[in-house]
Order: sequence, then structure tokens, then C-alpha cells
Amino acid sequence: MKRTAYFVSESTGITAETMGHSLLSQFDTVDFEQVYMPYINTEARARALCQRMDEAHARDGVRPVVFATMLDQEIAGILKAGDCFYLELFEHFVEPLSVELGVAPSRKSGQSHAITKPSHYTKRIEAINFAMANDDGMRPDNYRHADVVLVGVSRSGKTPTCLYLAMHYGLRAANHPITEEDFEHGDFPKEIIDARQHVYGLTIDAQRLQAIREERRPGSTYASAERCRRDIREAQTMFKRHSIPVLNTTNQSIEEIAAQILRAVKSPNGASA
Amino acid sequence: MKRTAYFVSESTGITAETMGHSLLSQFDTVDFEQVYMPYINTEARARALCQRMDEAHARDGVRPVVFATMLDQEIAGILKAGDCFYLELFEHFVEPLSVELGVAPSRKSGQSHAITKPSHYTKRIEAINFAMANDDGMRPDNYRHADVVLVGVSRSGKTPTCLYLAMHYGLRAANHPITEEDFEHGDFPKEIIDARQHVYGLTIDAQRLQAIREERRPGSTYASAERCRRDIREAQTMFKRHSIPVLNTTNQSIEEIAAQILRAVKSPNGASA
Repeated sequence: MKRTAYFVSESTGITAETMGHSLLSQFDTVDFEQVYMPYINTEARARALCQRMDEAHARDGVRPVVFATMLDQEIAGILKAGDCFYLELFEHFVEPLSVELGVAPSRKSGQSHAITKPSHYTKRIEAINFAMANDDGMRPDNYRHADVVLVGVSRSGKTPTCLYLAMHYGLRAANHPITEEDFEHGDFPKEIIDARQHVYGLTIDAQRLQAIREERRPGSTYASAERCRRDIREAQTMFKRHSIPVLNTTNQSIEEIAAQILRAVKSPNGASA
Repeated sequence: MKRTAYFVSESTGITAETMGHSLLSQFDTVDFEQVYMPYINTEARARALCQRMDEAHARDGVRPVVFATMLDQEIAGILKAGDCFYLELFEHFVEPLSVELGVAPSRKSGQSHAITKPSHYTKRIEAINFAMANDDGMRPDNYRHADVVLVGVSRSGKTPTCLYLAMHYGLRAANHPITEEDFEHGDFPKEIIDARQHVYGLTIDAQRLQAIREERRPGSTYASAERCRRDIREAQTMFKRHSIPVLNTTNQSIEEIAAQILRAVKSPNGASA
């Protein structure tokens, strides 16, 4: 059973996509074709989408689902009248929130992902630049300027997590790969130890690490089971020595890893509560 | 008037944060302290949050707002009984959606941002690696393997947009800075021209470009008004010559730029519809 779902908005559509995707994930037995439709901000675009809905209905044998956050009632009206199950995600909450806050809503679209707070936005962009410049152990002398330093064996998920932390939370995130040199020396470099208050370790199950490395360098020593197990074991010893908190990233998405790191950064002593 | 808002969930809390932030952006006259609270997945954590709510109420003089996507009714119950205006964002839609789909919801939390489709997740990670390896014109021979190549003068927003396109949409995004060499030569390098079917130009107002560059290299020729105007003008001439679509990024966030690029990639001939 295939079914089409559209995430629709007058602007970026990120809210409609995030919320719609979340709702659909509650119905994992249905095979959804998820279609992201940002900038449906003219009546012509709304009518073109209605035509796509008709085609989806004919193709799937069942009408599509539309998740929308629309503020323009004319455009919304065209979509609602289309051949679909239409869910407006915003409206239900705006009124009770308005009553609670004692303020009328602005009804302006595209506010959520626009640059409404330039200083906040600039911080995010600077964090991205910082993450790019401090990826993969490029500048150990910068670790002390970082909000977070992720440390782990090669291929444990450090780079994408740093980029996510920078992009979404504006954190200056650097990462340090535990190198052959570190293993020989038997410890992290001085810069990591000095910065340990904001260092977080990433680990991963040996079997999973081996699979990732094998794909990257098939048949290499680097990808051998023995080498993967040794890397992980010795990294654990080093983390323990310096009381660095460790997160196992096996089967976790970037979003899940990043949210846990953020939680740990914000409540360093309350992580276990 | 200051007011505290919490975005709460048992898992990453990304849906609660995205939706809550969107709703608050409709009330831009209120100064919100927005607090992201992922992984409220035990009763102890819920009770700790209730205590924070009490403190927020005392500090702000008004009760906090809670935007939640909770599936565990025990934990949700603790929060609802707390001193707050509680909005559950999910529940309202699950039942009607269930009726429409003819399927019961799984009621499992954390599905939306978990790795439920490994192939889709792997594609995103590979796209991030591609974006990192193909930033800033590092590998022009790879432009033909990219889904998108962003071209623009230095500081027009190429790098963060590429990372966003990779991270969120799994697009293999490369970027090419128009260099002094390109300006002297009077055209893009061959690799850009060959890949022009998926090349998008980014431009920016000269005044804004000057401000950004001035912050980076104060007093330099690079940051001069004349140089900024020349770079933008000549870039425009090149874009026109090769019929490359151009987006003005002045005052646009990464999310807005990325959503428009995605729209253009998906409907190359329908961008104006």
C-alpha cells in the first residue's frame, strides 16, 4: 500500500515537513511517498499542486494526505478544496496561545525560519565556519575556544554531529580523531586533556565500526576486526582516565547524538537525572 | 515582558522545538526565553522540569508555556500537572490521521529522527561527506558528480547552504567560489560550464557583501565597495551568459536559500509557476 503525503507551506515548509514527518512516523506500516512542497505562495502554485494531488490519487488509488501550515486563506482554500485529506497544523494552537499570551498573532508567514534575530543567526554562521575550520583535528590549539570537542576513533560520527551542533544550536564544535600517534603515545594530546571540561567521547560497537571501515577501505588493516576492537578498547581506557563522558553512537542518528550532546553541555551535572 | 517557553519531548525534541518555535514566531512582540528540553523520558526528569517551571514562573511573574510531543502518559501527566500552559502538539492530529489511514498509531516515541530507513540515512551521511570534500572549489572534476553546484562570489553563503542541503535533503552539493582567476579569464572554468544543468548562482547586495567582508578583512581591497560591486556585476554577466538561475541571498537564512534551491532542483522548469 503506497500513499502520497505532501508537506506544504507558503515559505520554507520546514515546520510542515518536520511535524508531518513526525506524525507519519507513527504509522510505519504505511509506505508513504513524502513530498516536500515549499513556497506554495501563489494561487497558481496551489492549483498546480491540486493537479499533482489528482495524479497521486489516480496512481495510488487513494487520496493523498496534505500537512500544511498556511496563513493565506485564499491559497489554503484552494488546497483544502482539492482531492486530499487536509491537515492544517498551525491553526489549532494559535488561538489558545493567543488567549494565554494576551497578544494577537501577527499572521505573517515565514517568520520561523527567517532571520528575525540577526545576532542569533550570525552566531550560527560563525559556528558553522568554526566547525569547518576545526574538523578532523585540524587545529588542536583551537580546542580551548570550542563549546564542544568531540573525540572518537575514525568513523564514529564526529564530523556530521559537529556540523549539526553548529548549524542548529550555534555551538562552536571541534572534533579530534584518535590517531595512531595517540594510541602509540597511550593518551590524548595535551590540548584535549586541557579542554576536557567540554570534551565528549563518541564510541561505537566494534562490529558496526568494522562494517563502516570495510566499506571505505576494503580488506585493509584499518578495517580489520582486531584493529577496530583495539581502537575502541584503548579509546575507552583514555576516556575513563580523564573522566570524559562517552556516548555510544551505534544505531543513533546525527539528530539523536546531537540532542544528547546538547543536553550534556547544558546540564553537565544533571545528565543522569 | 519576558516569558519562558519549553520545548519538551521524550526523545530528540526536534518536532516540539520546530513547531513550538514556529508558533512563538507568530507572537513577535513577546520576548521569549526558549528552552530546549530533549530526553525528558523518566518521571524524575519530568519532576526536575516542573521545578524549573516553578522557578521560571517566579522569575518571569507569569507561568511558562510548554510545547510537548509526549507519548508516555505517565510522564506527560507530571508535566501537565505542573505550573505551566501545556500544549500537546501531537495528539490532536493522531486520531483523525489514524481514521483516514485506517491504521492504528504505533505510539512509539523517537521514531521521527531515528534511523528508520538506513539507506536514506546513509545517503545523507554520504552527502555530508561529499559537501565537506567539495567545499570551496576543492575538486572541480567532481562538479559533474554533484546534484547541485552553488556558484557565487566569496561570502555569498555557499558553504552553509551546501551543508544544509546535504544534511537535510541528502543532496550532493558542491560549491565554487568565483575567483580572481575566473574574473581575469572573464568566465567560469570549464567544469562549471559543463555542469551548468545543475549549477545555481548565489548573489548578494553589494552593501551587505561589503559589510561581511569588512568584518573579515577590515580595510582590505577585498572588502572595498568598488571591489564588491565589480565582483557581483561580473558574476551576473557570467550567470547570464550560461543561463544559470540566480538567487539573491541578502537577508535570507540558510533554510530559506536551501528550500528555494531544492524547489528549483525538483522542478527545473516550474520554478516560475
